[in-house]
Parts: sequence; structure tokens; C-alpha cells
Amino acid sequence: MIMGSGVITLTTDFGISDAYVGAIKGVILGINPNITIVDISHEIEPRNISQAAYILSSACPYFPDGTIHVAVVDPGVGSDRKAVILRTARASFVAPDNGILSYVAEDKVEIVNLTNRNFWLNPISNTFHGRDIFAPVAAHLSLGIPSGDFGEAISSLVELPQSRPEVMANGAIIGRVIHIDRFGNLITNVKQSDLPADGIIIEVKGYSINGLNASYADGGERLALIGSDGNLEIGVRNGNAADLLKIECGDVVKIDSTSLNT
Amino acid sequence: MIMGSGVITLTTDFGISDAYVGAIKGVILGINPNITIVDISHEIEPRNISQAAYILSSACPYFPDGTIHVAVVDPGVGSDRKAVILRTARASFVAPDNGILSYVAEDKVEIVNLTNRNFWLNPISNTFHGRDIFAPVAAHLSLGIPSGDFGEAISSLVELPQSRPEVMANGAIIGRVIHIDRFGNLITNVKQSDLPADGIIIEVKGYSINGLNASYADGGERLALIGSDGNLEIGVRNGNAADLLKIECGDVVKIDSTSLNT
Amino acid sequence: MIMGSGVITLTTDFGISDAYVGAIKGVILGINPNITIVDISHEIEPRNISQAAYILSSACPYFPDGTIHVAVVDPGVGSDRKAVILRTARASFVAPDNGILSYVAEDKVEIVNLTNRNFWLNPISNTFHGRDIFAPVAAHLSLGIPSGDFGEAISSLVELPQSRPEVMANGAIIGRVIHIDRFGNLITNVKQSDLPADGIIIEVKGYSINGLNASYADGGERLALIGSDGNLEIGVRNGNAADLLKIECGDVVKIDSTSLNT
Repeated sequence: MIMGSGVITLTTDFGISDAYVGAIKGVILGINPNITIVDISHEIEPRNISQAAYILSSACPYFPDGTIHVAVVDPGVGSDRKAVILRTARASFVAPDNGILSYVAEDKVEIVNLTNRNFWLNPISNTFHGRDIFAPVAAHLSLGIPSGDFGEAISSLVELPQSRPEVMANGAIIGRVIHIDRFGNLITNVKQSDLPADGIIIEVKGYSINGLNASYADGGERLALIGSDGNLEIGVRNGNAADLLKIECGDVVKIDSTSLNT
Repeated sequence: MIMGSGVITLTTDFGISDAYVGAIKGVILGINPNITIVDISHEIEPRNISQAAYILSSACPYFPDGTIHVAVVDPGVGSDRKAVILRTARASFVAPDNGILSYVAEDKVEIVNLTNRNFWLNPISNTFHGRDIFAPVAAHLSLGIPSGDFGEAISSLVELPQSRPEVMANGAIIGRVIHIDRFGNLITNVKQSDLPADGIIIEVKGYSINGLNASYADGGERLALIGSDGNLEIGVRNGNAADLLKIECGDVVKIDSTSLNT
Repeated sequence: MIMGSGVITLTTDFGISDAYVGAIKGVILGINPNITIVDISHEIEPRNISQAAYILSSACPYFPDGTIHVAVVDPGVGSDRKAVILRTARASFVAPDNGILSYVAEDKVEIVNLTNRNFWLNPISNTFHGRDIFAPVAAHLSLGIPSGDFGEAISSLVELPQSRPEVMANGAIIGRVIHIDRFGNLITNVKQSDLPADGIIIEVKGYSINGLNASYADGGERLALIGSDGNLEIGVRNGNAADLLKIECGDVVKIDSTSLNT
């Protein structure tokens, strides 16, 4: 088993105005005062599990081996949805089992269903398992307690509906915008490896973009490039593409190639 | 006296866009480089002392014993309002004496009026005592300097106007919405112990809710439950109650019971 | 050379909703797990270099000697703009060379053009040098690696267009609003030392303010004072001056004196 990195990260939809995130950190520090807690984001849209899954998967590869990632977007809190630890080759994840770990579970080593109440706050609320279950479990895990002590092993996780792009009969690719970042750049679910080798033509909301640029500083008004997480991204030089092109999450992005029989 | 926990928390209305919070943290780390600083919230509405009092009281029970909580919503900065340390059985608080500590002062052990300028920045500004007084005092306190060294003991604090619910002659309860959280849930000043044992009917803005639910996953469109901090809370399943019911902080929530002679 | 303080600060326009800041912190902690990372602000307006320069200069004097400040507002990422380390008497700065260090470079000791790719992530993206260059360089610098190892010394930095106030023939001063803080207070580029000794009359957007106040608690509806960073500041008691006076960044503030021949 990999050694801990001394780092716990948090990805939630709790926002930063309420007392929720503070309470979570208080619980963690009460159990492991030597841990470093890093916020990935608390500004996930309320109840948007797939956005959280994307943001988590985008940040977590950059953390040191042995990091524990807590992800809590949990509309089913208080229902019978499971709470789990996922261990992979490089990291551990503590989260509700609702699809939020879909993009980080590829190299899964172990999944544990959290049933051992000895590691939870007592009593627990029905509305805030981030504070009452996920935080104390992550903190105890960071102390080196084996994941198997937290409950029984299970073999699979709830998965998000497939969000990989579709490939048409003629080779064209139908992808989607899955995230709009702070700059208004449109991040799609199309990976570099999905793209045709050359002659790329990207269509989105009636606009057409020819070829890929290397960076935002290098290009015209509208441009496409492979973003920093390896996904196809559409932007506007020194502007906000989402506002200018009136594009929203879920909108279709079609990729053709001049080398295809279109 | 309790040992320090190595943690200082911050609750302010300084926001996260300006340089204010960074400057406070710089001052603290210059005095005690080994401290862990945790943000509870910097998004308190500008000058909203009672909101800060509620948020602070909601998060601070979850921090380890000996934690130092700095709370700065300070519209009277530069006037003759006092600056204080409050010590309780479990924690210490450093704040302006303007009511912001109203909900955490129940088990007070000592109150110190901060008059010893040796622990302040020199010179101090008239507009930013968070950086110039509260931060260096908290940092020195975290080094183990006795609270009595920071000034002279005083016997009482400024209190917020009473915000407990009213009980009517027939036993009905008139409470208020005191906070709206990020999900639009309405947190009231009614505690579980205030409620009648059974037959609860909650009225708010012409809507009526019968009985309490156990969680947000368990219930109809509009529902009431005891929230994670023990207060009566009103919400909408998978929705934003504040927006849908057009409710604001300060709005009245009336609790009747079918067992009352209404 | 000064010893490190064990602190790295971050000032960016990356916002707090995306995975960008988390990825930067992961990279830093992977290289130096003992570092303390402090956010100054991630809410710089997208691509607003001069705002970042002001916020950075306002917070950094309060950090302990030897602190490393990372500042990334980088519209030219992927172009041939340089990336640099600036060392001053008290601190080090890691940033793109685009003017963002204009207000902290007065006592510069050394400037290094970052060309040694051994300290970068490999591969690097064309769109996110915050994660791929600035974060790992700052982390390695915090381990005590000499700044000269990161590239070759250069003699000057790109400077922002001069933003000091103008002095008219009759002694009147023409300044500008350079920042509006969370409270709506208008921070100008006029320093206390720029002001006439007495008889100050401040004009902004047709409003006139006579003399300086000591604090926001002490004054009428509209007031002017020397703010916590030593700049002339205009505000409204218990209100939002920017909203009430309809003032924006860049608006002119004129300072006359009754002792001038106006």
C-alpha cells in the first residue's frame, strides 16, 4: 500500500459562504492535526455530480502519490446510497457512491463500503455526511488506518451515464461541452486521441473553426486547442467564448475532417 | 488553561477578491510560522454582524479544543468600540466587541479588553484592525502568551438583540429565518428543543408544511427538518427554497401543533 | 541570500470554481510537502494585469521575509513573453514578465529569465504555465535551489504604463481610481505623500469632499481617508461608494487645496 502524502483535498458543492467547509476542516484537524487540507473547488453547481467528477479528475493527477481526495456532491444524503472509499494505484477517494468517482476509477485497487460507524461522528445528521462521515473517515485514513477497517469490500461503483463522444458512420465525432471555465472557455469531452490526424473542422452552434491552435495567444477571434487537461477546448482570444457564442454545458460540438467522406 | 490546537480560524466580511485576507494571513504567519489557518467564511455580507455570529457558532464546535477563532465584521473600526479576547471552556475568540460573539459566549471563562499595543502592528491603521490588531493578537495568543497579557479583564460583552423565538399564549412559536444557505435552504432560529412533541404544522409565507422529514432525499416538494446544526430548516427537494418561496432573512416562521388549542 | 519563510503565496485570475488552483497546489506539494500555501486572491478579473499588480503589492509587505509570491495573470501564455523570478531584499516573485511585478520591483536584487526546463513539468501545456512552470519553479525555489539555477540573469522587467498621479502647474493633482474593494470603497493611485499639507478638496464625478477623515466610523455620507495601504480612498459610511456614486476603475479623482492658487 502506498504511503500517505499528508494531503487531503476537498471537492464539494458547499460554496464558501456557509459554515459547511469550515466544519469539515475542523473535524479533519481534530483527528489529524498534521494534515494539509487543500480545496480543489467548493463551487461545484449544487447537486451537479458530473461537473464534480470532471473537476476532481482534472486536478487529482497533479497531487502527490498517496493523497486522499474527499468529494461530496451528495443530493442523496440521508437516503440509502452508499458511502465509499476507492483506492487506486496512486490515491484514495472518499465520497458518496453516486457517480462522482466515474472519471478517476480506471485503475481501481479496492472499493470499501463505509459501514463501520466507529469512524463517524456520533450522532450523525441526516443532511451533512460531509462533516459527519466523509471528513472523519478521510482523517482516520490519513493516519494510516487500513481501508478495510472502514467497512466491507465491494466490487463496483455507480457510474455516470457514458459521456464519451459518439463516432458517426463517416468518422465524424459528436462531442459535448462538459464544462465552461472562468474565462468562458468551452471544455469538451473530446480527447486529443479521439481527433482525426489532420484537416480538423469543428462546428459548434453554427460557427466553424478550422484546425487547432497551439495557445490562446496564437489565434484569431475563435479558436480551438487541446487544453491543459488534454481535452478539446474552444475559446475566443482575450474574450469569453461562452458569452459570445451563447454556448452552454451540454451543447453539441461536431468534429469533421477534410479527409473524411462528408 | 487548555493547550492550543495549532489552528486559527478566520470569519470575516472581507471577501476573497481583495488583498485583505492575504495580508491577515501574512501577519499571522510572520509571528507563528507553524500555525494552521482555516477560513470559515470571508463571504459574510458586508457589515452583517448577526450573520457572522451565526456562521461562527455553527462551525466552531467542530474544531479541536484550544482553537483560536478570529471574527472580524467591524463596521465600527476606528471608533471607540472595544477589541476583545473571549476565552471559553474549549476555545478562544479574538474579535471586535460588537455582538459578533453572542452565540459562542455561553460558557465564557474570561474576557480581555485589548489595550496592550505591544502586540499590535505599529503603526496601526484606522480602517483595518483585522490586519493590525486581531491578526497579531491571535498569532501571539497561539504562541502561548497568556490572555491577561493583552489587556485588562472585563466582565461582559456587547450582545446582539435577542434572536430566540417567541412563544405565544397558546403555545405556538414565532421564529425567524436567520440564514439562507448556498442551496437556498432556510435556517431558522428555532431549535429542536423549542418544538412541540408532535403534530407540528409549520407556516411560512402562506405555505404550510406538516411534520418533519428526516432528510432532503426523503420528502415532497416542500419539507422541514432539523438541520445539521440542530436548527429547524425549511427546504425544497432538489430545489432552492429561498427562490421558490420568495423568502428572505428575517421572514417569520410560525410553528403550531395539532395538539395545541389553536 | 535571505532564508525561506516556508510560505508560497498565489495571486491569479483562475477563480475558485475550476480545477486550476487545485492543480497548482498539488504540483507545489508534490515537490515541497512542508510548504504553507496562502491564497492572496484568485478573483483578479480575467487578464487584468494591473489589478493583480496592485493586489499583490498591497498584501506582500505583510508576509514574512523570504516568502515566495507566485503571480499568474497571463494572457500571453504560449507566446514568447518571458517567465521570470524577481528577487528583492525581502521576497521572491515568480511570474510572467508582463508588468504584473511593476509595483513590487523597486528594490530588485536579481531577475532571472526562466529557461531551465529541468524545473518544469514535462510535457508542458501551451495554456497553463501556472501549473506547468510557475508552480514547480516556486516549489523548487522554496527548497533552497539558487535562483540562478533556473535560467540566466536579465536586467529589466516589463513595466505597466505609469500609473502615478499627474501634478498640474497650479499644484492640483489628477489621480485615478485603481481598485474598488468588496465594500465599494474607491482606492486611488494617490499616496499620502502626494497630498497637499492642508485644505484638501477632493472632486470625483461632480461630488466634492472637504478634508480627510480618520476612519469610516467617523464621517458623513461621503468621506475620504488614507486607507490601510497608504493610498487615498473614497467611501460612503455604511454604504457602497462605487454603486452610489456610479464610479468605475479608471475614473479621475482631482485633488485641490484651498492653499493653491486655483
